[in-house]
Amino acid sequence: MEPTHIEHIGIAVKDLEEAIPFYEKTFGLKCYAVEEVKEQKVKTAFFKVGQTKIELLESTEPDGPIGKFIEKKGPGVHHIAFAVNGIQERLNELEKKDVQLIDKAPRKGAEGLNIAFLHPKSTFGVLTELCEQPKEN
Amino acid sequence: MEPTHIEHIGIAVKDLEEAIPFYEKTFGLKCYAVEEVKEQKVKTAFFKVGQTKIELLESTEPDGPIGKFIEKKGPGVHHIAFAVNGIQERLNELEKKDVQLIDKAPRKGAEGLNIAFLHPKSTFGVLTELCEQPKEN
Repeated sequence: MEPTHIEHIGIAVKDLEEAIPFYEKTFGLKCYAVEEVKEQKVKTAFFKVGQTKIELLESTEPDGPIGKFIEKKGPGVHHIAFAVNGIQERLNELEKKDVQLIDKAPRKGAEGLNIAFLHPKSTFGVLTELCEQPKEN
Repeated sequence: MEPTHIEHIGIAVKDLEEAIPFYEKTFGLKCYAVEEVKEQKVKTAFFKVGQTKIELLESTEPDGPIGKFIEKKGPGVHHIAFAVNGIQERLNELEKKDVQLIDKAPRKGAEGLNIAFLHPKSTFGVLTELCEQPKEN
């Protein structure tokens, strides 16, 4: 699969209004975007640390995936995203290697990336995302 | 604090002998080092993805920090490490900002780095490590 870098680390938080100022004032990072992804019932905030983004995730509904995660495990790291080239081919490869795919084909995620999730049962407990920057026409 | 990049992501696994071949064969990453950190009751395996390392952690004793983490939460992401310059000054700054420090002064971690952990109670549930490459004499 050979990911090029860690595209982002997704962190589940209870309240972006508290977490954003913490990441800014305490860690000296700059929140450069806040975006709602309605389909995922989530509001996200992005920070850049070298090649990698930190994506804070607040649930907009208690029954959304982030709301359920926090209820079960508490706030903390929710997923890791690898940047890859040729996301559909990578998914096909992984399926042949018996990795359970949550998304068999990429869909649009935050920041307009093409994204797909792998099931944590297949990846030693780590919810893993693949991301690819869409090609410009 | 202004970290320069994500130095590594620490992932708790039950068995390195299973997890290393998975990361190599499935994700196409290369394990370039295995190291035991006796003080932490842990055996580690390292992979490089762009600027960031993935550090797999297997407990060598059930009562070690990784053993306890897996018992409570299952395998998965254990901590995130920021690369910083001037680790002691960064710790002093964070303490003034009321961040609870696990290590008030840096100690030696895997790969000879100077490291210190921040308490997840102060960092929205994310066990956070600071790392600095020691200066060469």
